Amino acid sequence: MPKITREEVRVPADVMPEARDEYITNYLKATRETGRLMLFACDQKIEHLNKDFYGEGIDIADLDPEHLFKIGSEGVCGVLAGQRGLVAQYAADYPEINYLIKMNSKTNLVGTKQEDPYSPQLYDLDAVLAMKEAGVNIVGLGYTIYLGSEYEATMMAEAGELIAQAHANGLIVVLWIYPRGKAVTAEKDPDLIAGAAGVALCLGADFVKVNPPKPEDGRTPAEALKVASTAAGRCGLVCAGGSTVDAETFLTQLYDQIHVGGADGNATGRNIHQRSLDEAVRLTKAISAITLADWAVADALAVFAGEKDFTLADI
Amino acid sequence: MPKITREEVRVPADVMPEARDEYITNYLKATRETGRLMLFACDQKIEHLNKDFYGEGIDIADLDPEHLFKIGSEGVCGVLAGQRGLVAQYAADYPEINYLIKMNSKTNLVGTKQEDPYSPQLYDLDAVLAMKEAGVNIVGLGYTIYLGSEYEATMMAEAGELIAQAHANGLIVVLWIYPRGKAVTAEKDPDLIAGAAGVALCLGADFVKVNPPKPEDGRTPAEALKVASTAAGRCGLVCAGGSTVDAETFLTQLYDQIHVGGADGNATGRNIHQRSLDEAVRLTKAISAITLADWAVADALAVFAGEKDFTLADI
Amino acid sequence: MPKITREEVRVPADVMPEARDEYITNYLKATRETGRLMLFACDQKIEHLNKDFYGEGIDIADLDPEHLFKIGSEGVCGVLAGQRGLVAQYAADYPEINYLIKMNSKTNLVGTKQEDPYSPQLYDLDAVLAMKEAGVNIVGLGYTIYLGSEYEATMMAEAGELIAQAHANGLIVVLWIYPRGKAVTAEKDPDLIAGAAGVALCLGADFVKVNPPKPEDGRTPAEALKVASTAAGRCGLVCAGGSTVDAETFLTQLYDQIHVGGADGNATGRNIHQRSLDEAVRLTKAISAITLADWAVADALAVFAGEKDFTLADI
Amino acid sequence: MPKITREEVRVPADVMPEARDEYITNYLKATRETGRLMLFACDQKIEHLNKDFYGEGIDIADLDPEHLFKIGSEGVCGVLAGQRGLVAQYAADYPEINYLIKMNSKTNLVGTKQEDPYSPQLYDLDAVLAMKEAGVNIVGLGYTIYLGSEYEATMMAEAGELIAQAHANGLIVVLWIYPRGKAVTAEKDPDLIAGAAGVALCLGADFVKVNPPKPEDGRTPAEALKVASTAAGRCGLVCAGGSTVDAETFLTQLYDQIHVGGADGNATGRNIHQRSLDEAVRLTKAISAITLADWAVADALAVFAGEKDFTLADI
Amino acid sequence: MPKITREEVRVPADVMPEARDEYITNYLKATRETGRLMLFACDQKIEHLNKDFYGEGIDIADLDPEHLFKIGSEGVCGVLAGQRGLVAQYAADYPEINYLIKMNSKTNLVGTKQEDPYSPQLYDLDAVLAMKEAGVNIVGLGYTIYLGSEYEATMMAEAGELIAQAHANGLIVVLWIYPRGKAVTAEKDPDLIAGAAGVALCLGADFVKVNPPKPEDGRTPAEALKVASTAAGRCGLVCAGGSTVDAETFLTQLYDQIHVGGADGNATGRNIHQRSLDEAVRLTKAISAITLADWAVADALAVFAGEKDFTLADI
Repeated sequence: MPKITREEVRVPADVMPEARDEYITNYLKATRETGRLMLFACDQKIEHLNKDFYGEGIDIADLDPEHLFKIGSEGVCGVLAGQRGLVAQYAADYPEINYLIKMNSKTNLVGTKQEDPYSPQLYDLDAVLAMKEAGVNIVGLGYTIYLGSEYEATMMAEAGELIAQAHANGLIVVLWIYPRGKAVTAEKDPDLIAGAAGVALCLGADFVKVNPPKPEDGRTPAEALKVASTAAGRCGLVCAGGSTVDAETFLTQLYDQIHVGGADGNATGRNIHQRSLDEAVRLTKAISAITLADWAVADALAVFAGEKDFTLADI
Repeated sequence: MPKITREEVRVPADVMPEARDEYITNYLKATRETGRLMLFACDQKIEHLNKDFYGEGIDIADLDPEHLFKIGSEGVCGVLAGQRGLVAQYAADYPEINYLIKMNSKTNLVGTKQEDPYSPQLYDLDAVLAMKEAGVNIVGLGYTIYLGSEYEATMMAEAGELIAQAHANGLIVVLWIYPRGKAVTAEKDPDLIAGAAGVALCLGADFVKVNPPKPEDGRTPAEALKVASTAAGRCGLVCAGGSTVDAETFLTQLYDQIHVGGADGNATGRNIHQRSLDEAVRLTKAISAITLADWAVADALAVFAGEKDFTLADI
Repeated sequence: MPKITREEVRVPADVMPEARDEYITNYLKATRETGRLMLFACDQKIEHLNKDFYGEGIDIADLDPEHLFKIGSEGVCGVLAGQRGLVAQYAADYPEINYLIKMNSKTNLVGTKQEDPYSPQLYDLDAVLAMKEAGVNIVGLGYTIYLGSEYEATMMAEAGELIAQAHANGLIVVLWIYPRGKAVTAEKDPDLIAGAAGVALCLGADFVKVNPPKPEDGRTPAEALKVASTAAGRCGLVCAGGSTVDAETFLTQLYDQIHVGGADGNATGRNIHQRSLDEAVRLTKAISAITLADWAVADALAVFAGEKDFTLADI
Repeated sequence: MPKITREEVRVPADVMPEARDEYITNYLKATRETGRLMLFACDQKIEHLNKDFYGEGIDIADLDPEHLFKIGSEGVCGVLAGQRGLVAQYAADYPEINYLIKMNSKTNLVGTKQEDPYSPQLYDLDAVLAMKEAGVNIVGLGYTIYLGSEYEATMMAEAGELIAQAHANGLIVVLWIYPRGKAVTAEKDPDLIAGAAGVALCLGADFVKVNPPKPEDGRTPAEALKVASTAAGRCGLVCAGGSTVDAETFLTQLYDQIHVGGADGNATGRNIHQRSLDEAVRLTKAISAITLADWAVADALAVFAGEKDFTLADI
Repeated sequence: MPKITREEVRVPADVMPEARDEYITNYLKATRETGRLMLFACDQKIEHLNKDFYGEGIDIADLDPEHLFKIGSEGVCGVLAGQRGLVAQYAADYPEINYLIKMNSKTNLVGTKQEDPYSPQLYDLDAVLAMKEAGVNIVGLGYTIYLGSEYEATMMAEAGELIAQAHANGLIVVLWIYPRGKAVTAEKDPDLIAGAAGVALCLGADFVKVNPPKPEDGRTPAEALKVASTAAGRCGLVCAGGSTVDAETFLTQLYDQIHVGGADGNATGRNIHQRSLDEAVRLTKAISAITLADWAVADALAVFAGEKDFTLADI
């Protein structure tokens, strides 16, 4: 898979001229110079509280938050996505990781039946830019929109303004868009997922993270995904990894998402960090082998099995 | 149809002296020096999600968002109206298009029965001005108000302030005004449409986009429209194109809106972009022939049929 | 009726020293050097939509918004009150009119039964000051408060801050105060009207526009009004003109409001602009003859009948 | 009663060094160099509309708002508390009065049954500081909190920030704290009143105005008040005067509030201004004789009866 | 227990370089150079009104707010946590205390059944920084989040931004996190407490104050706490002291929280200040002996009994 050069990076028109170099650098860092994104999602300590990190079937290592940073450091990822405070507490010891600051988050305590979801922006962009200025290797921002929520307006407006400011400062932006709320009856309806992808484009995001569509008309998920990735236009589309499944199933899905569905990468969290450090590191490498180097599923499985290695040099 | 000169452009008193030249330039660009507006509406990816771009009866080309820009570039339009992010991702490759940035948008997931409509402003004007400064050919702004919604107050206030700021910076403003909400029983009532036109004037808009009125008293829609266009005073009135109908019906309606109803142009989206590139381009030309050059319907139909050409030089 | 001099103008203590001259000038302009206010209300295109401007019993001339400015220009008024955008579109052609910018407005679509009334501030004062700076003859601001609405708090706070800023910049302020909302059972109760007048004073307004009280204890409306005008203290009180009635009734009421009720002028809209230009102009002169020159009703009626003229020179 | 010196004034730590002299001056002015506060409450024109100023049992003089300023000028008070606009309209003619600007107010139209009470801040502190800078003798601010209202949060936050800013600028602050709302079953419960006093301290107020507690356990109101005044710590506690009662009852209560209940003064409105000017002036003197000079009730009654005089020189 | 040096303090990456020294100083002050926190909670005058300070079983000394400062001054604590205004009124007389300003608070009048809890930020950080600049010994901030409340979003956002600003200025931050609201059925569920600890970390807090978990699966509270303290990662965890219990029970629990549960200190209020000054002082010393010097329970009890002394020199 050929690397892309600085000249080949397509820079949106809202990246100010003086931030153009910074944007290109961040885009190339985040995509490991491939244009594809391997996002290691580490924002669940707020989103799912401690349930994703402790309990049956979860390696005990996952209880200590530093586990996430060890994986990010020893594995092969594009970016590690986490809240500003989490990154602030560990970044000094893991300076080489590419950080993507998740700008909003909510817990899962108040359910959709009680209240439509709203995930608040937790800090100004200025606080993030200051951290970057002080030396933290921040390459971009993340923000979640619950499309169809009664609070959709607030989240769309926060995201819309955030992207404008981020681009003006040379940061890339990934939108998480999940249809959810009383008005949404089928969160993974293919039309809805494709619509979500289009919303991300119109707001100016560089990448959009969506749930894989569940078609009920005979199409495979990957075929339905192709519609969404086309609708996303110049906004790269990546799929959420979802809950932990076996590696072969997971890697095959990922391969199909990219090669059939037109996805531009992946965004995986629990499936990685709920494992022991060694196993988690190998999984990041297997994922990156597919996402960043177009390896076959069999080769990626060999990486996961420890039979082969995969490093940044293999991209 | 005689072109208007820079001196003939009527400049509102809230255009600051230092922005006067810029306003005149933008007004002449948007109206192709005619005072009439041919607006190609491309904001449906948020408003209607993917339903307007993919499915039965829609050309497959419409799934790729770049389709919109190809039409804007190869056809004849006054402005292409889209969200800031959408424009940011493609403008560098289509620099000659006149862009009108749609400042607010909402999806159609939460219906009026659940909640009265509110469409949030998605980014500050500063972000748009910065893009313009960085070289994007932005000539104006758009904003939607749902009159009669319980959130009317918020949208009227956002629009009122936006117009003041836009004019101060030399941009023109088009308001989309649709009566909608629990309090509105007949969205296309002629009195209500005329009222909407007056609201746009009082807020200081340059153009107002309304739905064509549906009179139930024997008047034709165009006759009823004449009341609204008069009530709009110095604010130009254009009608929304609505869903896709056959070209002859569509072009005849448009001709009547202008020549009987006193409309100052048109605003059309789906009816154009759901067609193949070639057909869509021909339709923009047919529309512009009527709107910008006072051609007869038969001549415009010949343009649509490809029997005649229509270019900017014909205005 | 003797004119008041610059020295006789009572300047509130929140007019900053550097704005003192400007305030005196604006106060004298607005009151035609009499201390009384003849306000021509032209904010109904938002408040009542098109119903006040088109239909049975309304002269067809009223459909074109320019009608308002022609009346303001050819008639005799203190100020023409309208929204910022409306004034911006016509002021260049009618530069001699004294403009009072109505800072908030709402439509009548959402009724009180559905939701208590809230009328949002539609633009910052800065936008108005910029227009003034650019040459528009703006002498003051207007703002409506619905007392007793569940949104009373927001409107009182917007008005309170607006008056402070307006005075600091030398503009006069007129408050429209109408008791309205689920909690208000009798909108024209004399005690309530008197209370409204007191609220205006406490917020620092220069004039308050109220509906004429409807006493049910045998007092005449004008007698009841006297209580309100006294309660208003140094805030001048003017009565809303209400819907169109015959000129004699109207002018007699006005005379009594001033000479019995202690009113400091009048605020009339529909009753003027729903007439033909000539009749409307004559009515403004008849009103001003009473308000600004203490003429008798019979003389004012002669003015309205075209038997006598009344000009600024008669004040 | 010995006067306190500038050195004896206890200055809170949030009074910035450069504002220290100003704070001491204002504290001494407001307390007439006694540390005790005689507050003449004149904010009822918004709070109670015109009912407190006109009607049976109220002297007709009270209808004219200037009555309040005449009393403030001819009587003996610590401060006259009123809204910014009210003070702005009269202060130039009554420059010697110590003004305390009431920063928030609401009408009584929307009752607690319909909606929990919220009283909005009506203007920024900047507007008040500008008036002071322009020469108005403003010594402090007032703000009302309805404790236990569903809007408690907003009022506490406005008050908390206001006190910080006021102290930073050398102004003193008086909080009116009334428990009220659906959650409050006994507004004058002694524990609740004591709690309110503690809240004022924690927000940093200089004085708190509470309603006198109504104990139901055999204690006298003054004994119960002692608990509240102790709980208030370094925040001085004053009691609201309530509705008009006969002077002997009123003055005896006041004496007990101070000498048994530990109150640091009083805050009286209706009981003063509903009387004729002469009687009202005498009542302010009688109150001040007790509050500011520790005179006996009998002596104060003699002052009220006109048999003795009390002036600032008697403090 | 060895003291930690300036070099050993782990400074989060959002502490700006120019504030690094200040942060280290504040961290060492607050933890008495141990890395452990003994927090004397004095924010209940708003949270619980006067009920915690007066009544049966409470020493009468506690009614006077100065009691809190006497304890803070004569006892051994890490920080005294109270609202800005409370600290402002007494800090000049107790300059040696380390103050932690509680930035938000609510009363307990509106119960969770009526409305989910929201505790508003009561003043800007600027006001606190100004006090610090003026000489008050402020080392950090506190903020309460009610996780699972319908207002969780607002509190999380206020806290997230506050921590960023506080760290940028060199202050430490303690979050109080209590799950509460209609959606929360078991406020002390161990999983929920562990989740709360993780939220604090992700927001970037230095310490989190939680209620001790109540496990129902046979584990001891301290064992369950170990999960939470691990989940907190680099954010120190301290337990709330709760209502007054006998000293032996209290101190034994504290010992176990630290030595079994992995707690990094304690946060105690009522249990201390509801006692006489002498007893309260001895209790702070007994607590600090365990928290800051790893003394055995028996030795700490001897300190409480007055048989041994414990001073800062013993750390």
